[in-house]
Amino acid sequence: TYLELCDRQKNTNVRLSLPAVCIVWQTAMIILFGVFIRYNEESSPRWVEYRKAKNISSDIENDFYFRYPSFQDVHVMIFVGFGFLMTFLKRYSFGAVGFNFLIAAFGLQWALLMQGWFHSLDYSDGKIKIGIENLINADFCVAGCLIAYGAVLGKVSPVQLMVLTLFGITLFAVEEYIILDLIHAKDAGGSMVIHTFGGYYGLSISWMLYRPNLDQSSRLQGSVYHSDVFAMIGTLFLWMFWPSFNSAITDHGDGQHRAAINTYLALAATVLTTVAVSSLFQKHGKLDMVHIQNSTLAGGVAVGTAAEFMLMPYGSLIVGFCCGIVSTLGYIYLTPFMEKYMKIQDTCGIHNLHAMPGVIGGIVGAITAAAASESVYGHEGLINTFDFEGEFKDMVPTRQGGHQAAGLCVAICFGVGGGIIVGCILRLPIWGDAADDNCFDDEAYWEVPDDEETFPQVPQYNNHMRNKDV
Amino acid sequence: TYLELCDRQKNTNVRLSLPAVCIVWQTAMIILFGVFIRYNEESSPRWVEYRKAKNISSDIENDFYFRYPSFQDVHVMIFVGFGFLMTFLKRYSFGAVGFNFLIAAFGLQWALLMQGWFHSLDYSDGKIKIGIENLINADFCVAGCLIAYGAVLGKVSPVQLMVLTLFGITLFAVEEYIILDLIHAKDAGGSMVIHTFGGYYGLSISWMLYRPNLDQSSRLQGSVYHSDVFAMIGTLFLWMFWPSFNSAITDHGDGQHRAAINTYLALAATVLTTVAVSSLFQKHGKLDMVHIQNSTLAGGVAVGTAAEFMLMPYGSLIVGFCCGIVSTLGYIYLTPFMEKYMKIQDTCGIHNLHAMPGVIGGIVGAITAAAASESVYGHEGLINTFDFEGEFKDMVPTRQGGHQAAGLCVAICFGVGGGIIVGCILRLPIWGDAADDNCFDDEAYWEVPDDEETFPQVPQYNNHMRNKDV
Amino acid sequence: TYLELCDRQKNTNVRLSLPAVCIVWQTAMIILFGVFIRYNEESSPRWVEYRKAKNISSDIENDFYFRYPSFQDVHVMIFVGFGFLMTFLKRYSFGAVGFNFLIAAFGLQWALLMQGWFHSLDYSDGKIKIGIENLINADFCVAGCLIAYGAVLGKVSPVQLMVLTLFGITLFAVEEYIILDLIHAKDAGGSMVIHTFGGYYGLSISWMLYRPNLDQSSRLQGSVYHSDVFAMIGTLFLWMFWPSFNSAITDHGDGQHRAAINTYLALAATVLTTVAVSSLFQKHGKLDMVHIQNSTLAGGVAVGTAAEFMLMPYGSLIVGFCCGIVSTLGYIYLTPFMEKYMKIQDTCGIHNLHAMPGVIGGIVGAITAAAASESVYGHEGLINTFDFEGEFKDMVPTRQGGHQAAGLCVAICFGVGGGIIVGCILRLPIWGDAADDNCFDDEAYWEVPDDEETFPQVPQYNNHMRNKDV
Repeated sequence: TYLELCDRQKNTNVRLSLPAVCIVWQTAMIILFGVFIRYNEESSPRWVEYRKAKNISSDIENDFYFRYPSFQDVHVMIFVGFGFLMTFLKRYSFGAVGFNFLIAAFGLQWALLMQGWFHSLDYSDGKIKIGIENLINADFCVAGCLIAYGAVLGKVSPVQLMVLTLFGITLFAVEEYIILDLIHAKDAGGSMVIHTFGGYYGLSISWMLYRPNLDQSSRLQGSVYHSDVFAMIGTLFLWMFWPSFNSAITDHGDGQHRAAINTYLALAATVLTTVAVSSLFQKHGKLDMVHIQNSTLAGGVAVGTAAEFMLMPYGSLIVGFCCGIVSTLGYIYLTPFMEKYMKIQDTCGIHNLHAMPGVIGGIVGAITAAAASESVYGHEGLINTFDFEGEFKDMVPTRQGGHQAAGLCVAICFGVGGGIIVGCILRLPIWGDAADDNCFDDEAYWEVPDDEETFPQVPQYNNHMRNKDV
Repeated sequence: TYLELCDRQKNTNVRLSLPAVCIVWQTAMIILFGVFIRYNEESSPRWVEYRKAKNISSDIENDFYFRYPSFQDVHVMIFVGFGFLMTFLKRYSFGAVGFNFLIAAFGLQWALLMQGWFHSLDYSDGKIKIGIENLINADFCVAGCLIAYGAVLGKVSPVQLMVLTLFGITLFAVEEYIILDLIHAKDAGGSMVIHTFGGYYGLSISWMLYRPNLDQSSRLQGSVYHSDVFAMIGTLFLWMFWPSFNSAITDHGDGQHRAAINTYLALAATVLTTVAVSSLFQKHGKLDMVHIQNSTLAGGVAVGTAAEFMLMPYGSLIVGFCCGIVSTLGYIYLTPFMEKYMKIQDTCGIHNLHAMPGVIGGIVGAITAAAASESVYGHEGLINTFDFEGEFKDMVPTRQGGHQAAGLCVAICFGVGGGIIVGCILRLPIWGDAADDNCFDDEAYWEVPDDEETFPQVPQYNNHMRNKDV
Repeated sequence: TYLELCDRQKNTNVRLSLPAVCIVWQTAMIILFGVFIRYNEESSPRWVEYRKAKNISSDIENDFYFRYPSFQDVHVMIFVGFGFLMTFLKRYSFGAVGFNFLIAAFGLQWALLMQGWFHSLDYSDGKIKIGIENLINADFCVAGCLIAYGAVLGKVSPVQLMVLTLFGITLFAVEEYIILDLIHAKDAGGSMVIHTFGGYYGLSISWMLYRPNLDQSSRLQGSVYHSDVFAMIGTLFLWMFWPSFNSAITDHGDGQHRAAINTYLALAATVLTTVAVSSLFQKHGKLDMVHIQNSTLAGGVAVGTAAEFMLMPYGSLIVGFCCGIVSTLGYIYLTPFMEKYMKIQDTCGIHNLHAMPGVIGGIVGAITAAAASESVYGHEGLINTFDFEGEFKDMVPTRQGGHQAAGLCVAICFGVGGGIIVGCILRLPIWGDAADDNCFDDEAYWEVPDDEETFPQVPQYNNHMRNKDV
């Protein structure tokens, strides 16, 4: 069996393709950054002059101080949150946290360019001017691809992940431009733009890469005690910092403040209903770690769009309440159903954590926007919150609700359509992905240490047994 | 023995009670939030108008920017800090981090209501108006219950924990109102309000739930190598973010600044004396992880009250110095003594980490307050720091010291009294707690993965042995 | 073998020396703090008066709000970042995270004094006035010693580490004063002052403490699966918060903003080239966790000096690109070479992660400074960025470049020279360090729990076997 194992692993050799992709693409990034990317007026040494010209009284009004703490929280969610959430598999923790690291590091560079061309291009000199908000948006953009990674975790090679990310970021930037700028939908926490898109993108890819004999790896498709504890690190950092995620790019002042409160409340409610459903549908009422690790986060996804609106504290709780139930039931019934009847193998259950709650979030956002009124928001408050300015000066809340719904449809279409196309590309037999009986195994792409020495007792038994054999 | 195990676990079946409690209580939260909770003027869209009316020059003066970074640090302490600190038990990590998650998520909602009624009720419309400071206070309130959880860790069911939290938050809000508002004691970092109360509340409950045959679970009442490393995650996040905890709700400007410095210093000193005492009292001078995980934090507890006062940097070091010694000696002598002679089983040693240092903190606060003077604080500084305003306009430092001491007594009384009452309730045989020989075991309430597959060697032995049997 | 083990462990008994050092030095700290350390005007209650006198319009302009979020990120890097990065060894995780904790807690106190005397002494009353920036600098100072710990990890006693830290902090404060104040070099992120110094300091000490028979501990000198995952916690927190590290003490406004952007980008590029080189030089293209854990951070080190300059976004990417390659090649070729031919045993490979990238960072800083011009920075921007004020009013960029280079030389000299001297002291046979065959083993200084109970299967086999024996 050792020789067989070696044979099988041969096709996962990425010794040329992975370094080539990394070096070439990173070189391309350097060139494109050289041509296009510059500091904006708040991160350039000319800030001193700019400040005086704009009559800004203090350095503390630099956008850096409004957004940097939220940025760092988002950054933690991307690298530790998503990375550790996926470490739950008993023998794929290196791949979970390591490939998450790799594709996020590449993705954020490509996102700065793609989003920059759409949103931060200075037409006077053809350069993209970046500041702290661009870094946050790049991290957001990456989140879409990391969500997609959750669906194919353990079944694809790092080279495939790089391709998934390249196309994912590109599609993201386009759909984001359509939804936010052309359709003028609002999506502070990205329920539509990030979660719905990322979820369906990943699920469609997973559908295209369906492996009928994946049960050959079933011995590795579960957790062990400590890998579940590692995953809780990811869960908790996602859960705790989600208020920062949803408020990171909202309006200064009340916008950030309200988004944080709404998210905080929605997430709290989700925990209770997740626990309730997990216990109720399990033998002997025992809780399932899969639900605690994932469904507790669904409320944060679902208040993403409406977080900056007047969702009201009780509204946030209701959204969280429903999402905990829907998401946990999804893990219990929908994931097995989708695998059996729809040929969608969703390793982390992103359909329950991102896709469904994302759609719910889009709908909640549309309703909340349509229900907005000057009596609740105040005259100026309404205009500020929904950006009823410039060409959208004559927009009214009810119509905004329609635009929100349109935005949701665009996100779904881009996710499904993009996922199918990228899935086709990833089916080509050139990417070094593992065989069906070699999935979920770090041995394929990592030098894995031998664990024998950890447990001093075991070798003793071993010796003991050897002696007996003699 | 398998059948026996099943029998025993039957009484830990919480399949009806746990979901019922979660759903009903969460529904109650939604209704109460609907009736009572609204955004305050800094988190509502009317902030723009408010800002102009109040002549506030910039959005950056929204309280959000003063307190949000500290809030997120406190949030991490509550969920990752307390959660992971308790993962040290070899087979109760799921319960530690999972139930911590559950009761904190419930508790913060109930705390927003309870504290809101006392502190943030707008009498003009009967609504509680919330902003970032309320979220911090809700997290603080939860901390009291999580401390109490430490004493009963591994010995109670999640339903009991929910009850403990419901009453704990209620008692907390009342004692906090008495101490801070009626008595006008100051308690920035909650040495009295949070740690003393939470500590004695938990110890009294544990005393009421005394299990004479708990040694039947002694095989599970220790750590393993990796569970101790997990616990260090909790320790370090608590230790690092404690300056944010103690400064989160102090006065803008120098208040927050000074509280952070004092806490930073006290904690540093505690580490050194903890190491010293741990080594000195151990065979061969070896350090004990229990001390490093817990006693290193005692300094942060003990400067809680005085953190915003002119404790002086060397004063902070002295407090930390003493607490490291007292707390470590507590683990070595007091915890076994209390278990043997006082029938108090304190799983995490919260008496040494929270109760005793909390009392020390209350005393330090009283002395520091009594010693305050205009020559040190300045005229305005003294008034600002101690809120000698309104009905307390004529207060003097020495009398403030007396009020501080009175506050400490109230905290102890509420902790002990409340704990005994709640302990009585929790002794009812309806809560699904585990048998004496089944404590400290996640099997009771969690689907625990089978660890066999992790270590490829073991199954081989297994086969080998089976072959031999044949 | 048990008796032999006991014999060997006897010489690691630090039961008197460790407590003595901790108590005496901590007492000394208290006395020195009592004599010298006071709050500065922003952390004292006199801030209210100061604010009015200086016409500062809002509390939000207190330096606390500019720097506290970055401070907390740096704090996490010091305690969780460095601590967990070193947990990769299979049986030295307690020592890694525990001794890191101890020496950081001591070091930051001594650093506040040492740096205070050089930088924050108020000559009017002979007191050191501290605020948030001093806390950040103290953490920075500690970082130098923690880097050095990486080279000697597993081979020294905690008492030796305390001595290493005492001298390390002292040397750091002196070289920092020479480099920043006398030579007037700029070093925002400490490429020279922290990483180059700390790296060579540690390597020189390791050279002095060369152990020819260290291979007797080779069974313990590797990782196990979960210890590698723990180490990734350290890696990621270092990686994520490095933008805060490099921007923590730069100028308010654009300085902090730009430093964060540059660091963010450099680190992203490093990840890709690290992965590329790791895969390319490994059998079957498999990635090595050692590289992912360490080399991915080299870019952050190397943009430290130039982070606040106009390095440009593409410049940051280029620096990161090169450092990922250099650092990973260092792990593959240089570390074994240094051990074999230069008698330098570098447990964590700090030469590749800190020393080399630090030197690169110093050179990049010198070039970037020399290339500065008013056309890029603006007139005021140039003066602000390089502090061409006071006695350095007539400085020009090209000359500043020379001063930067001089600063780098000083850092190397202090590192190598100081390390040799301190190494001599640490060679004395009085410190309780472990024997060659007892290195990398927590048993020497920690009460290590017995792991037998974790895996319920194992005892069963055990019983089974016992029965068979009968």
